[in-house]
Amino acid sequence: MKNIEVCLTPALLELYGVENKVVVVVDILRATSCMTTGLAHGLKSIIPVASLDECRSLRAKGFVAAAERDGKMADGFDLGNSPFSYMDKSLEGKSVAMTTTNGTQAISKSLKAEQIIIGSFLNKTAVINYLLKQSHDILVLCAGWKGQVNLEDTLFAGALVEGVGKEFASENDSAMTAYTLYQAGKNDLSKFLSSSSHVRRLRKLNIIKDIEFCLQSDIYNVIPVLKKGELVKMELEMESVGLKQN
Amino acid sequence: MKNIEVCLTPALLELYGVENKVVVVVDILRATSCMTTGLAHGLKSIIPVASLDECRSLRAKGFVAAAERDGKMADGFDLGNSPFSYMDKSLEGKSVAMTTTNGTQAISKSLKAEQIIIGSFLNKTAVINYLLKQSHDILVLCAGWKGQVNLEDTLFAGALVEGVGKEFASENDSAMTAYTLYQAGKNDLSKFLSSSSHVRRLRKLNIIKDIEFCLQSDIYNVIPVLKKGELVKMELEMESVGLKQN
Repeated sequence: MKNIEVCLTPALLELYGVENKVVVVVDILRATSCMTTGLAHGLKSIIPVASLDECRSLRAKGFVAAAERDGKMADGFDLGNSPFSYMDKSLEGKSVAMTTTNGTQAISKSLKAEQIIIGSFLNKTAVINYLLKQSHDILVLCAGWKGQVNLEDTLFAGALVEGVGKEFASENDSAMTAYTLYQAGKNDLSKFLSSSSHVRRLRKLNIIKDIEFCLQSDIYNVIPVLKKGELVKMELEMESVGLKQN
Repeated sequence: MKNIEVCLTPALLELYGVENKVVVVVDILRATSCMTTGLAHGLKSIIPVASLDECRSLRAKGFVAAAERDGKMADGFDLGNSPFSYMDKSLEGKSVAMTTTNGTQAISKSLKAEQIIIGSFLNKTAVINYLLKQSHDILVLCAGWKGQVNLEDTLFAGALVEGVGKEFASENDSAMTAYTLYQAGKNDLSKFLSSSSHVRRLRKLNIIKDIEFCLQSDIYNVIPVLKKGELVKMELEMESVGLKQN
């Protein structure tokens, strides 16, 4: 049987390895929710970069540039990390360079994977249906918060473990931990997460609407996939997952 | 309010820091269960060492030496990592040098803590009662398995988070994860853990009796505490926790 593992933070990634695996990068609040939202709303691509400097130099080359550090938009950039800002009509057809505190770092560390896709509650079922068809093992990589484990990413990892359970065994204890957490929280994600550290951090920044948005399931039928360094919308029909494209 | 944090594996310890904290080292299967059992049964002290070489050189100096690697007793030592072997009458009054795959490594990494104590289900209530009296913050350090998170240590961490909840807040998401896991598993630890990676590993080694023993709560009213490099039985009366000494 194929296997699904969960890595609770990029700080532990070297214990797992990404080679020959489909890696699902998860940063629910808010990087991977933004990526999903942006591509669903017509962005051509998102170029994830690890550092502010790289992001700045892409901006100098004419890209729209999004940068978030510590939950806030970094100075001198065009976009922050709110999913609502990725719905802007003026972004349609454009490519955005993006760097965030945790999410884009997790992608940078996974480049040797067989494939990197982006997961969030917003595209949960699309991701699960896609994963169910895979012949490679799966590694769910939670972006966490500066190396630490966080509740919302772990919870979503648990949703994936549950979702692919027919086809993928979960031998590792982190996967079981995530699964158990999801069972405890899935009926009311918002309530369950109300005490999480990052939700409290974001509340202080007064972005409650962002949190509520990111905790909705299956708003988009879109999977961002990394191709040649850019996240683009996967052509789901070609992957024959039987989903209607957004 | 004072704070309790949970570090799910020693690989993440540098994100927390141990200074000015009471660190509870947890390696349920089986190092910290053995330490508790040994001191409860009359061992004078346990000297935790990180490497087989250190353990061997203490053996050469006349100490009883216990060494476990990958779940098995290492060649050329006197004891392995079964709690039953620590009940031996012939060990009364003796000091044992001990090295294990995960538990003694976790201790070695925590030496800058205000205090290091040893927790297991076997002495759960004694540990909780002691912690409730502390003025320092608490860090529960799960030994895990070779850097990875494991279910049984996380579960026990959750028991401590629950137990000290009146006096200690848990701001970190790992503590909330552990707490949630414990709520899911506490009514039948053995069943809950039946699918954990380490339980499966130990089952293959045919040490089911060890597992069952280590999952019993409150068998001993003893807390091992590190003093000058040796784990000794804490004088609980002097700490005025109101417990009857075993």
